[in-house]
Amino acid sequence: MQQIIQVSTPKHNILVDLTHKIEELVQNSQITTGLVNVYVQGATTGIMIQENWDESVQNDVVTLFKKLVPAGIWQHDAQDNNGDAHLKAGIVGPEETIPLIDGKLGLSTWQNIFLCEFDGPRKTRNIVITIIETPK
Amino acid sequence: MQQIIQVSTPKHNILVDLTHKIEELVQNSQITTGLVNVYVQGATTGIMIQENWDESVQNDVVTLFKKLVPAGIWQHDAQDNNGDAHLKAGIVGPEETIPLIDGKLGLSTWQNIFLCEFDGPRKTRNIVITIIETPK
Amino acid sequence: MQQIIQVSTPKHNILVDLTHKIEELVQNSQITTGLVNVYVQGATTGIMIQENWDESVQNDVVTLFKKLVPAGIWQHDAQDNNGDAHLKAGIVGPEETIPLIDGKLGLSTWQNIFLCEFDGPRKTRNIVITIIETPK
Repeated sequence: MQQIIQVSTPKHNILVDLTHKIEELVQNSQITTGLVNVYVQGATTGIMIQENWDESVQNDVVTLFKKLVPAGIWQHDAQDNNGDAHLKAGIVGPEETIPLIDGKLGLSTWQNIFLCEFDGPRKTRNIVITIIETPK
Repeated sequence: MQQIIQVSTPKHNILVDLTHKIEELVQNSQITTGLVNVYVQGATTGIMIQENWDESVQNDVVTLFKKLVPAGIWQHDAQDNNGDAHLKAGIVGPEETIPLIDGKLGLSTWQNIFLCEFDGPRKTRNIVITIIETPK
Repeated sequence: MQQIIQVSTPKHNILVDLTHKIEELVQNSQITTGLVNVYVQGATTGIMIQENWDESVQNDVVTLFKKLVPAGIWQHDAQDNNGDAHLKAGIVGPEETIPLIDGKLGLSTWQNIFLCEFDGPRKTRNIVITIIETPK
């Protein structure tokens, strides 16, 4: 099963929780055991599994990446002025592949699936969800 | 085939080698070609492929992450005092998906599969192993 | 379907674009929907999805990792003098799993698949491509 979901990203740097949308697709697929691949199409965004208790960790992710990858000092800035966004996206990576267990995402209590926007705001980010079934 | 393995983590920050346990599951599955997904359930731990010749690289991983993500300066610390552990886990990521070739993990000589503990010690970390078969 | 492709890496630190080679394998497989896992065998190299418009982002990736992970200060350097290469490879990771959509790699316009060499030059790096089919 393969389907594309879409989200908008309201800030330049922000994490957007995709978990509920993906859980819904998983339930509709009626597949019980396998893998769920979450892949974002875009070279300035990524997918990260992270805690969702409140927004503190999400804010800390933005703060950390601003510190590790400062804006405005990259060769690519001569073109698009978003060199830092590409580098952050490269470290985070565009995908996570998550086990599907008894018909549910195999996340632990505090793991949620986030899109990391590093070059927003954007009206539309496309995320491809692919579910692979395997015998239990 | 899907199965959960468990390990304990004896230190606050430590890498634990999972390779032999996963190789055993792979052999028992009798699947020869496909993918092996290794996913750790927990928002302060990750999965990293790394050299296993001795403990030097494992120690260096701990040192590097302490330097890149200092403890005690994060918004999330007001809750759990483990903001750095969440951020390290977010960078490393909770999973790796490894090819299964001729019935064996497709690792190179110096690649082993490690759990990275960033908020231990813990009695139990659950790692979900999912094997997907494909025609050769 | 599973196949190994090989590339050489002409510099100590360099990104090598694998996209065209992988696209060719995907086309030959005649599989239309599923996942394509790209896995590099080697503990001082990784796989990163990154922009390919020109070489600026590739150069910036090398610059960033030299800054985040300085050479010559690691415990592992006593053995191989390449502790930094192992750490960079650990952060980037050896694999990406990409959706296969309508017989093509599900990359966006500016996403290409790169091997990141951190301990070259090397005559041969082996990359395992595994394609898994799923019903649409």
